[in-house]
Amino acid sequence: MKLLFKKDDLLNGINIVLKAVPSKTTMSILECILINATDNQIKLTANDMELGIETTVEGTIETRGKIALDAKLLSEIIRKLSGGDSPIVIESDEKFNTTITCENSIFHIQGKDGDEFSYLPYIERENYISLSQFTLKEVIRQTIFSISVNDSNKMMTGELFEVKGNELKVVSLDGHRMSIRKIILKDNYQDIKVIVPGKTLGEISKILGGDNEKEVLIFFSKNHILFEFDNTVVVSRLIEGEYFRIDQMLSSDYETKVTVNKREFLDCIDRASILIRENDKKPIIINILDHVMELKLNSSFGSMNAKVLIHKSGKDIMIGFNPKFLIDALRIIDDEEIDLYMMNPKSPCFIKDAEEQYIYLILPVNFNAATV
Amino acid sequence: MKLLFKKDDLLNGINIVLKAVPSKTTMSILECILINATDNQIKLTANDMELGIETTVEGTIETRGKIALDAKLLSEIIRKLSGGDSPIVIESDEKFNTTITCENSIFHIQGKDGDEFSYLPYIERENYISLSQFTLKEVIRQTIFSISVNDSNKMMTGELFEVKGNELKVVSLDGHRMSIRKIILKDNYQDIKVIVPGKTLGEISKILGGDNEKEVLIFFSKNHILFEFDNTVVVSRLIEGEYFRIDQMLSSDYETKVTVNKREFLDCIDRASILIRENDKKPIIINILDHVMELKLNSSFGSMNAKVLIHKSGKDIMIGFNPKFLIDALRIIDDEEIDLYMMNPKSPCFIKDAEEQYIYLILPVNFNAATV
Repeated sequence: MKLLFKKDDLLNGINIVLKAVPSKTTMSILECILINATDNQIKLTANDMELGIETTVEGTIETRGKIALDAKLLSEIIRKLSGGDSPIVIESDEKFNTTITCENSIFHIQGKDGDEFSYLPYIERENYISLSQFTLKEVIRQTIFSISVNDSNKMMTGELFEVKGNELKVVSLDGHRMSIRKIILKDNYQDIKVIVPGKTLGEISKILGGDNEKEVLIFFSKNHILFEFDNTVVVSRLIEGEYFRIDQMLSSDYETKVTVNKREFLDCIDRASILIRENDKKPIIINILDHVMELKLNSSFGSMNAKVLIHKSGKDIMIGFNPKFLIDALRIIDDEEIDLYMMNPKSPCFIKDAEEQYIYLILPVNFNAATV
Repeated sequence: MKLLFKKDDLLNGINIVLKAVPSKTTMSILECILINATDNQIKLTANDMELGIETTVEGTIETRGKIALDAKLLSEIIRKLSGGDSPIVIESDEKFNTTITCENSIFHIQGKDGDEFSYLPYIERENYISLSQFTLKEVIRQTIFSISVNDSNKMMTGELFEVKGNELKVVSLDGHRMSIRKIILKDNYQDIKVIVPGKTLGEISKILGGDNEKEVLIFFSKNHILFEFDNTVVVSRLIEGEYFRIDQMLSSDYETKVTVNKREFLDCIDRASILIRENDKKPIIINILDHVMELKLNSSFGSMNAKVLIHKSGKDIMIGFNPKFLIDALRIIDDEEIDLYMMNPKSPCFIKDAEEQYIYLILPVNFNAATV
């Protein structure tokens, strides 16, 4: 095999597939990137058996072939080669001895047989939706923070992708809070309801360019989801099972509605959280009165009191929250003013816009009212 | 005590003295910053008993007094306060209860008695030198990489500061290499020869503005060094003892002199070091011929060969180095072309400019010539 690349093309392709190279594995072939130039295209592939990425790279094929090269080594070598006008030449022989040459430097490394590499599963391209790269990237950013990090409940480590007609609903929850984003698609599609691993979405969002003009096609099969964009294909297993019944967690009843400047509210909570160290479960207590909310946090380090002006309708209420959950949700809302809906100090608080394009549900925490 | 500050003034002062707050200590008072407004000035002080920093901060003294506040908490609170046009007010009572107020937020924290704080040692301002902040910052950057990180030999963790007439010589060495920088001062001074802890120099160089127009005064006493610049004073203990006799390590004899483009040489070695993992002691072997040097590195990951064009005078030579030592020295030299002087494969290599403003000595390493 003998291939010629421009440095930037090759490096860009490597950086994309690198997201699917496992950091720890017992199968050393999975630590490799497969370079496949057996056809008229040069494809790079990485696959950790849950998530697989394949991307097509520009380059010249002088001799066809394929080779699996250690991903970390390959990426470091290509990153440090001078590039410029000189092409990078990758050449391998039948014993998988590989040389990587650029200008005045030659690397000799030992490759592996490309035939040993695990190919991506074949996915029927039938059931699909289309949306912009920007929208998908945003939707992931606005929901992924509320998946569960520990996988004692596997379902909570993923996100629900539900399509009905022209609406895509994306949901994540971790037992203390829930995020829902609704997107109106350009077309109507078949009903779909799948659970996508959070890790897959995290990696996808790093690769997506965030361009509003460029599309992503998302294909669904029984066990897999496939994202197709630019020259790249990402395939991931789905999480099996029936997702939580989220509709019964939602309610549009409320006793108190508060409208507040997001920045001011966030800054106050953020400031208060200085007084909390890890594993310290001190709530922020919010006392909602006419025109003003009083925030208070007490910890072993000290206390903070703050006041923020609000618009209120309905009853006064005093309610406590884990400040981190409020901060997480407020950080990713782009609106200048937000609405909070509360029923009582034991029921979930909803932060949502009028059209319910986003809904953030946060469970309150108990606090000893006598100490406030 | 009651003081008013602009946020930026106070935060800037805190960030300066924070460099002398120990990360671990058994004396909890040392984890504090002392705010002293008993006179007409507001001074912040931190002191880890080796290194002490004091800086004067702009502010309004409504009621005089002093208080010691937890450095980490204070710095986080001030950083997160909104600032803007509102002043930050710090107020403490006779029980050291302290409130920090800004706009709509109030923090209550427990301070400590300022009288318990360890003051900086008194240094006679007699024996001194003066140089620009920029020069001092540069000199530190260009030498500090070759101090020893482990303190089995305390002297190697510091740098020699030697003044003779109008020349300041700064030296660091770690047993494998040595860095020497010579600076011509504007005036003549008394002879001085002290060893300054590397940690002090590292922290100083973070605080120094790097302005060529602004001066630093450096005062020397038997056991201490004191740096005075802007509104800040830094005092550090010196390392006791007689520094290594470096003159006998230097030599201007050579058998081979090589002139090479620094960037090309550095890039090649940097590239080769991809093949080395931590604790892997593979040398880079440099074969110097007429007009060209060949570089070669072999490791369990593979091998690299490269060629760089040079000007050579004297004998051919094949010599091996720890690539890290070459990289460290080459990175901080600003010259486009550099000169290397070598005697034989067992003797130190010198990288130095014609005026010997800088001299970098690197010991070669043994290699098995048969395997090259």
